Amino acid sequence: MTGSGPLARACAVTPDGAGAWRAELPAGWDVAGVVHGGLVMATAVGALREETGLDPVTVTGHFVSPGRAGAARIETSIVRAGRTLTTARALLEQEGRPVLAVQGSFGPIDPAPHVLLQDAPVPDWPDPESLPRTSHVPGIDFPPPLTDRLDLRLHPDDAVFVDGRPSGVARMRGYLRLLDDEPVDARGLVFAADALPPPTFNANLPVGWTPTVELTVHVRALPAPGWLRIDTGTRFISHGRMEVDAVIWDATGQVVAQARQLALVPRG
Amino acid sequence: MTGSGPLARACAVTPDGAGAWRAELPAGWDVAGVVHGGLVMATAVGALREETGLDPVTVTGHFVSPGRAGAARIETSIVRAGRTLTTARALLEQEGRPVLAVQGSFGPIDPAPHVLLQDAPVPDWPDPESLPRTSHVPGIDFPPPLTDRLDLRLHPDDAVFVDGRPSGVARMRGYLRLLDDEPVDARGLVFAADALPPPTFNANLPVGWTPTVELTVHVRALPAPGWLRIDTGTRFISHGRMEVDAVIWDATGQVVAQARQLALVPRG
Repeated sequence: MTGSGPLARACAVTPDGAGAWRAELPAGWDVAGVVHGGLVMATAVGALREETGLDPVTVTGHFVSPGRAGAARIETSIVRAGRTLTTARALLEQEGRPVLAVQGSFGPIDPAPHVLLQDAPVPDWPDPESLPRTSHVPGIDFPPPLTDRLDLRLHPDDAVFVDGRPSGVARMRGYLRLLDDEPVDARGLVFAADALPPPTFNANLPVGWTPTVELTVHVRALPAPGWLRIDTGTRFISHGRMEVDAVIWDATGQVVAQARQLALVPRG
Repeated sequence: MTGSGPLARACAVTPDGAGAWRAELPAGWDVAGVVHGGLVMATAVGALREETGLDPVTVTGHFVSPGRAGAARIETSIVRAGRTLTTARALLEQEGRPVLAVQGSFGPIDPAPHVLLQDAPVPDWPDPESLPRTSHVPGIDFPPPLTDRLDLRLHPDDAVFVDGRPSGVARMRGYLRLLDDEPVDARGLVFAADALPPPTFNANLPVGWTPTVELTVHVRALPAPGWLRIDTGTRFISHGRMEVDAVIWDATGQVVAQARQLALVPRG
């Protein structure tokens, strides 16, 4: 169930007794030295997937302290194994320090689409193969080292912030795929939901780095092979907090995930 | 901190030893005999508010089994008390049966608005005083008994489903206030986030009752006195699951909460 490929290796877990798992948060999957939140969450969700034998249907993580490259321990517990869904919790710690608390509902995700309503146009964006891949430049915070671990192609209208010319709209769109043709499974969608730069980088606002407080991902379908299209935006920034909403489509145009996070907005 | 008024009484908790609380889920706040999910969640969140001494900033509940009128016990635990936010968990049980698992970040909510971005027009809806109040008719499932516990005025374009003429759009808007002029605090927003009928009641789809699997509420500000405006909608229904998104404005036009839930869609 763990799969193989760079992401599967980066968030692998091994049993460490009843309801406990060990992981090694990897170097190089970081944003300014902090292990990427989506990767930490995918690691904890992976432990819960092993524990329950089921895929994440809706998972929520609260980020308690920054993850650092190195050993981590995950305690898992089943709240209730139900007929349709199993509710479970995980706590990921490093050296006794809580890093991430996860709670979620796990169950089967039907591979055959059965869609009653999809009220969002399938994005009609430029061909991803025609777009430059975002990559890390050593010694500079952005793009972060994380971007070298995946293939991210930002929408040209949103990539403008990289050159210091933000679009003025708090939106960030892009194509994503994993390296080595690694397929994206339900755990991969949890990672992908947090993989784009913050939409606020395109807003003309005094907004710096935006640490995630909470991330919720609804896995709506298992993606077909190929590019994911990810559309993220922020509508409300107030009291030093903002949300980021994400919708993810697979290569067939099926919505495969919805996500929202609450993040802190340091001023200036 | 518990406040007074009908909602405060309905979700009151009393200490029951270290990290434990007692509650009495009330009769009459139900939907077809099941205690309203938002009320159950407000009860657990209220226990966490007592435990932490802080307001809910972002809280997520996973609904495990239906709440019934009667005694409940809530176990609370602090994951970590941080400088800016405290992460905490609660498990609400009835007769040893888990009903709801809650996890959230608690902290101060600045009463003075400081808004950098609000990219959503303040709703320009008909005067609530001109709209009929939704009320329960004994012996009929909808509107449910819950509606008699609050003052709910549906937008006329969305209230049409009550008469069997759904609008065809998966949207439900309405004004809400509590009875006896009870003010809506952060806990009240958790309740309000789940108080409207499902948007799918207005979609021309074979969709019946929609039990909530997961509900996340971001409290963005404390509401000013007066009517809340609540706009909810559903964009994706697939694989027997749907999301409901909600934005809540207070009477001054300030966005005070954002919420999303994942619910099951029984077919037919």
